[in-house]
This record gives sequence, structure tokens and C-alpha cells, in this order.
Amino acid sequence: MKIRIGIVGYGNVGRGVALAVQAAADMELVVVFTRRDPGGIKDCSVPVLSIDSAESMTGDIDVMILCGGSATDLPEQGPYFASLFNIVDSYDTHAKIPDYMAKIDTVAKKTTAIISSGWDPGLFSMIRVLSESVLRDGATYTFWGRGVSQGHSDAIRHIDGVQHAVQYTIPIDSAIESVRNGARPVFTARQKMKRECFVVAKPDAVKSKIEETIKTMPHYFADYDTTVNFIDIDEFNKNHSDMPHGGMVLRSGNTGDNTQVMEFSLKLESNPEFTGSIMTAYARAAHRMSKDGLYGAKTVFDVPLSYLSEKDREILIKELL
Amino acid sequence: MKIRIGIVGYGNVGRGVALAVQAAADMELVVVFTRRDPGGIKDCSVPVLSIDSAESMTGDIDVMILCGGSATDLPEQGPYFASLFNIVDSYDTHAKIPDYMAKIDTVAKKTTAIISSGWDPGLFSMIRVLSESVLRDGATYTFWGRGVSQGHSDAIRHIDGVQHAVQYTIPIDSAIESVRNGARPVFTARQKMKRECFVVAKPDAVKSKIEETIKTMPHYFADYDTTVNFIDIDEFNKNHSDMPHGGMVLRSGNTGDNTQVMEFSLKLESNPEFTGSIMTAYARAAHRMSKDGLYGAKTVFDVPLSYLSEKDREILIKELL
Repeated sequence: MKIRIGIVGYGNVGRGVALAVQAAADMELVVVFTRRDPGGIKDCSVPVLSIDSAESMTGDIDVMILCGGSATDLPEQGPYFASLFNIVDSYDTHAKIPDYMAKIDTVAKKTTAIISSGWDPGLFSMIRVLSESVLRDGATYTFWGRGVSQGHSDAIRHIDGVQHAVQYTIPIDSAIESVRNGARPVFTARQKMKRECFVVAKPDAVKSKIEETIKTMPHYFADYDTTVNFIDIDEFNKNHSDMPHGGMVLRSGNTGDNTQVMEFSLKLESNPEFTGSIMTAYARAAHRMSKDGLYGAKTVFDVPLSYLSEKDREILIKELL
Repeated sequence: MKIRIGIVGYGNVGRGVALAVQAAADMELVVVFTRRDPGGIKDCSVPVLSIDSAESMTGDIDVMILCGGSATDLPEQGPYFASLFNIVDSYDTHAKIPDYMAKIDTVAKKTTAIISSGWDPGLFSMIRVLSESVLRDGATYTFWGRGVSQGHSDAIRHIDGVQHAVQYTIPIDSAIESVRNGARPVFTARQKMKRECFVVAKPDAVKSKIEETIKTMPHYFADYDTTVNFIDIDEFNKNHSDMPHGGMVLRSGNTGDNTQVMEFSLKLESNPEFTGSIMTAYARAAHRMSKDGLYGAKTVFDVPLSYLSEKDREILIKELL
């Protein structure tokens, strides 16, 4: 019997999950739940229902994949759904994860809840633990980009005179190279990454003023080398409407007199589709852990890799070990 | 109380394990066992005993790390030690792993035995499973090198007229680039890697004959572009006595219309010290799994990452997730 999946929230990540679930041979997408008017979602091949009707479907869904945002959706939806279903989410407010996890753990008495299962937190976190555990004497570096930062793009969009904007976070090659070469440099924010902005200004806006406002914005841009490019709406739509991202985790360490370097990197044409693919693999794990009676709040650190695969453990050992 | 570690076999990997265990804050190296004359090992800071005395020390050692070779040592030592102790090994004869594992599993009734825990099999296997599970529609590539292949070096050393020899396996950059760019090429052996040999010939040897013998050797060299460099013994000792290695696992896949690329790479100045560091982290896991009653033969696919770390799960979640 296939693993029956429900999705909560049908934004970019929700659509990415739907793609991944429908591609998996061992899963079935049963239903999508939305906070909005279900009739407003036309591009979905399974029933779209109001989030309020989820409670009556505990017998119809094996794992609920929560695709809402970390700021307001998940703090409310995570504990609610974890009390009723096995869940997977990609909660990504790093500083608040322990509190969030404790809340989930309190209610997940007979369910398995895997939280923070995107790529950072998620895959990158796994590499940080793995590489630090193997190379005890060393330093770990995480670089993000080249990719779109929604938070920084939003910050630009709130500036007077801005019609559209996108911000790319770009890691600095020389910084990556110095880590790869076995050094353990200490970077300022500016030395690690730079920021590139593409802005469509309103007709009457003063571009120099917008540029000045961006470059001096505290926290977001002031601590980085920032480039601002003004473009027209056609170029914006043509070249800047995708959601690429990526990044890498590097650990440089020593054993005896020898330098050892471990590196994990992602180059993603679609950040939300990749995040959805990870969450889908962890939904498989949540289902299996639940069957094993491994209830409560879990993270990617708690899940054996064999639980992620469509293939049987024996096949994995024979073909991939 | 610290985890009490024993080492079986004190070659290059055994010395790498000793380094890693002695660096770990939560471990104690208790004893080294050898098949050879224990008096012959002078560079060890803990007692060196004959392998025959291990049986009397089941109460003194929490995990035994087996550092013998896969050809003859481990098929005998693995099942023997797994019946008495929790063990970790780096059994690396890929084709025979299922049989070896079954034998271990039969005897590991009250012990935890983590097999094949180096970097390939081992870390690379983990990335193969993880990346395939996340990116279902894709292709996985493993490249080895630049690094010393002991098997190929040995093959050269057996040729008449060869005094010393080392062989480096070198991945071909253009092949790696084509995978990174999202293509899913099908490679011949020759397109994926090349082989570079450094040979010290005996005084009366005919170098052209040695070179011909190497380049036409079936399986080992005939299917690859092979370069043979003759050097003198001084250069050999100066530049070719280290044991560097490395490699990478790449998966290129698609979600919808988008290409996604995952990459994990290692650049190692000392292959045996790195292997020893991995086995040491898995010894920690074996100890913990044994305490949890998770007995039997296990692989890296069965071990949650939190089991590898010196740090508590709560700290990992707070600091590394």
C-alpha cells in the first residue's frame, strides 16, 4: 500500500512537494489543504480542501507535509498537525528551533514529527554534524548562494519608488578557495559573501536615492559589498523570475600533520522544488519511524539514511554501499 | 566514563585510528592487538598484545576497531571479534559485502557491528543514498582521486625490473564538469579517469619494456590513458611517499523542468588517517547503539548522525541544525 500524503499550504514549496510525491513510486498524494479559498487553487490534480477539514481525515493520511512559512504559519500549524498526524516541515528560524521542537514533542505522543527538513536547516546541518564528528580538529564554513534571498528581496521592495526587486546572495570565490586550501580563516560578513540587486524603479523614482537606501540598510546590506542594477520590467520578467539557489558546507581539519577537506555543495535551479523533494524523502522516513513506534519530535540527525530511500535496505547495501 | 577502545591491526589505518581515538574527549585507547610479534611495535603509547589474548578482555573494551585488510584479515577477524565485542571495520570488497554482513549478523547476537565504515564504502555510500532519495530522477557519479591506488601500485611493483612504484588515479576534469552542468553522460572508464605512474627502475632494467608492460596490463591499465614517469629513488622518497587521496560523489537530477546538482568531495592528505577518523566516529555510534540494544550487523545507512558526535543531541540541534 502506498504512503498517503497530505500537503498543507500550496505555495512554491507545496507545489514542489506535490511534484516529488507524484514522482515517487511508493507514495500517493491524497489531498492539499489551504488556509485560503480552496476554489482559488486551479492547478492541482488532487482535491483542495479547507485546512479546517483536515481533522476529520486522520484515517486517510499517513504523513502530512507542512509547507507554510516559519514566521507565522508553522508556529501554529506544527503543533496542531503533529497532535493529529505524522508530519514533516521545514521550519527554518534557526534560533527558535529548540523551542519549536519542544512544543512539537509535547503533542507528538503517537505521531512522528520530523522538523526542519529542508537543505538549511536540513542537508547542510547533516553535513555539519558528519564532518565535525569525523574531523574533530577543524573549522566548518557554510556559504549560501548564488541564489535569491526572499528576505532581502522583500526589504528592497518596501523602499519608496521600488516596483519590483530581487536580491542574489553570492559567495566570494577567494573565501571559498582559502578554506579549500586548508586554511581556517576568520571571515567578516563582507569577506564571505556579496549582494547583487536587480531593481525595477517606478517611473517617477529617484534611482540614486533608492540605491543609497539599499546600500546603507543596516543588517541587510550595510555590512556587505552590494551592487544595485536598475533594469526594466521586461528584463526583470525574462531573467529574474526563477528561484535558483545553492551553497556549500566546507570543513577543513587536521589529523596529525595532515590537512583534510570535506565539501558538500548544491547548485539548484529551483530552491522550492528541491526543498519539496527533501521533505518528501523525510515523509517516507516519518511513515517508517511511526510504524516502528519512534514517536515524538525528530530532526534529520535522528533519521537513519536507509529510511529515506524507496529501495529496500538489502538493495541499498548491495548496490550503493 | 570514557568509551574504551581496542584496535586490531597496527598498520597505516590502525595508526590513524589511534590518532583519532586519542584526540577524542570521550574515548580512551586501551590496547592494540597484532597478529605479528607485539615486541616489534615500538611507536605505540598503549600496551600491544597478541591477538590471541583479546578473548580474555571482553570486560575491558567497549568497542574493537578492526583495521585489517579486506582480502584475508577481515573475513576471519570480523566474525570472530563480532561474536565477542562491539566492532567497527572498513570492509571494502564491494561485491562481497552482503555475504560478509550476513556472516557478521549471525554471530553479533549481543553486540553491535558496524561494517564498511570508511569513505568508500562509507561516507560516499551515504551521499549516494541521500542524493538518490532526494533527487529521484537523476544519475549518480563517483570519481576517485587524485590519489594513490595501492592495488595498482602493487601491480606495477610485480613487474620485472621495477624497484619502487606508485600509481595515482586522477579524475578527468571535463567529465566532472559535464556532470556539474546537469548533463547525465555515460562514460567509458577512459573518459572518467586517467592513471599516472611513477616508477624507479632497477639499474639493468629496460624502461621501454616496463612502460609497455604497464600500459597494456588488462583491467588495471589497458582501459585507461596511462602515463609512466621514470624517476630516481631520491625523488621517489621525497615526493611520492605520502598517501593522499580524495574523490567526489555527484548527483545530477531534475525536478519538473529544473536541474539540481548535489556534490560531495574529499581532498585528503592522508587517506589512512581520514579512514581512521571515520571509523572512530562510528565506534562511538556502535557503543551507543549497543547500549540501546541495537545488536547485529549494521552499516552507515543504519546509524542516525547524532550517534556520531561527541556532543549531546540538544547541543547539535541548538548549534548545528
